[in-house]
Amino acid sequence: MTVEEDRSGLHAYQIVLRHIEAGILSGEHRAGDQLPTERDLATQLSVSRSAVREAMRVLQTQGLITSSTGPGRGTRIAPARGDALARLFQLHLSLSTAADADLTETRIALERSSAALAAQRATPEALLRLQAVVDQSELVEAIDQFNALDTDLHVLIARVGSADLTADLTVGLREAVRERIRTLSQALPDWPGHRAQLLAEHRQIIEAITNRDATAAANLVEQHIRRAYRTLGITPEDHRTH
Amino acid sequence: MTVEEDRSGLHAYQIVLRHIEAGILSGEHRAGDQLPTERDLATQLSVSRSAVREAMRVLQTQGLITSSTGPGRGTRIAPARGDALARLFQLHLSLSTAADADLTETRIALERSSAALAAQRATPEALLRLQAVVDQSELVEAIDQFNALDTDLHVLIARVGSADLTADLTVGLREAVRERIRTLSQALPDWPGHRAQLLAEHRQIIEAITNRDATAAANLVEQHIRRAYRTLGITPEDHRTH
Repeated sequence: MTVEEDRSGLHAYQIVLRHIEAGILSGEHRAGDQLPTERDLATQLSVSRSAVREAMRVLQTQGLITSSTGPGRGTRIAPARGDALARLFQLHLSLSTAADADLTETRIALERSSAALAAQRATPEALLRLQAVVDQSELVEAIDQFNALDTDLHVLIARVGSADLTADLTVGLREAVRERIRTLSQALPDWPGHRAQLLAEHRQIIEAITNRDATAAANLVEQHIRRAYRTLGITPEDHRTH
Repeated sequence: MTVEEDRSGLHAYQIVLRHIEAGILSGEHRAGDQLPTERDLATQLSVSRSAVREAMRVLQTQGLITSSTGPGRGTRIAPARGDALARLFQLHLSLSTAADADLTETRIALERSSAALAAQRATPEALLRLQAVVDQSELVEAIDQFNALDTDLHVLIARVGSADLTADLTVGLREAVRERIRTLSQALPDWPGHRAQLLAEHRQIIEAITNRDATAAANLVEQHIRRAYRTLGITPEDHRTH
């Protein structure tokens, strides 16, 4: 790997990265702001244009900048993109040695909050959409398709509560365990029974949200996650935290 | 910016990125695994070596791989690094248009969980460390230093509960609002009064953790965050969710 380091031990592209990141963190760069050209940044920071380009690749992948060509082209600071954050979160979780218990508690914390907010804020249209996902999953028997709708429901609950940040983190957490849940679900001696139980719990959660009962919605989501994980054999310990 | 796209509209470096990321998500690449050389990856994926190098910069910045030179050198899949995740989280929050209410609810959800877990799991040594941070902050009057110790305490509570994932997310959330909290604290008509209130609340939280009262610890943390944010003028709405 080409090494191009300055005296502080930083690669040239890292100098560019730190410069742009510092601007974002200080609030100097805001979403939509145009960045200087590759040439200007290279001159300003005394690095090669290829170092600037490498830094831009990094920032682009992180969802922090967007580049466009054509009239009005250039590189701009992006509005925060939940999908980029959720993806990186998911990649880190895939490599994480975090105990299952840690992941489970984080998931429960976020989803309790989502469910409570959904009970407080869901519009009549949003309630219909939640109901539609549960109705749809009632018709699905296959593990993969059912799991996909299960994920959709949990994410939709977070979105309905206008908690985008929580929703993005929820997506990352669920995607990170998707494959594991699929494998464990396939190994269950009684998938139809587990599926029926999940459906019943989903209906109770949606009912609590529809009834505007934030406390019940939060408690039901927590019980649902703990029960499902126990059945699947995830998290042997049961730390009740609420 | 150099454009080097294949027919699917992907840049060459993105082809490399997707390849490595897919390996991580599928579990094929695990922490510590050595990656093929730059040359082999370039051949395998039919891209230039500079495209491979750009992808490696991205993965390195995201904390997903580490490179080392010298004997046993090479590029390996990294163990998940909370600091890389927390930093990206913080960058996204800096650009986020997420309403304050959204950030606050996420913070409360995570910190309720941390406090409850700390009450259940803190060792005697951990309790002493928590106490020491509060004692230290008792001696500090200056806003910046007090705020730094305040952050330390909240992060330590999460670490003490062995909830590393929650702790990393807590760090990201707090760092993202640090500057804002500093500015608002400086503008307070009665900083000494606010500081005294924060200290009293911190003592109550540590007491609940020491008494192994998970429910009280969670409730006190929530009240503490809501009260502080109200005083600072963050989040006009008060959605109680628990």
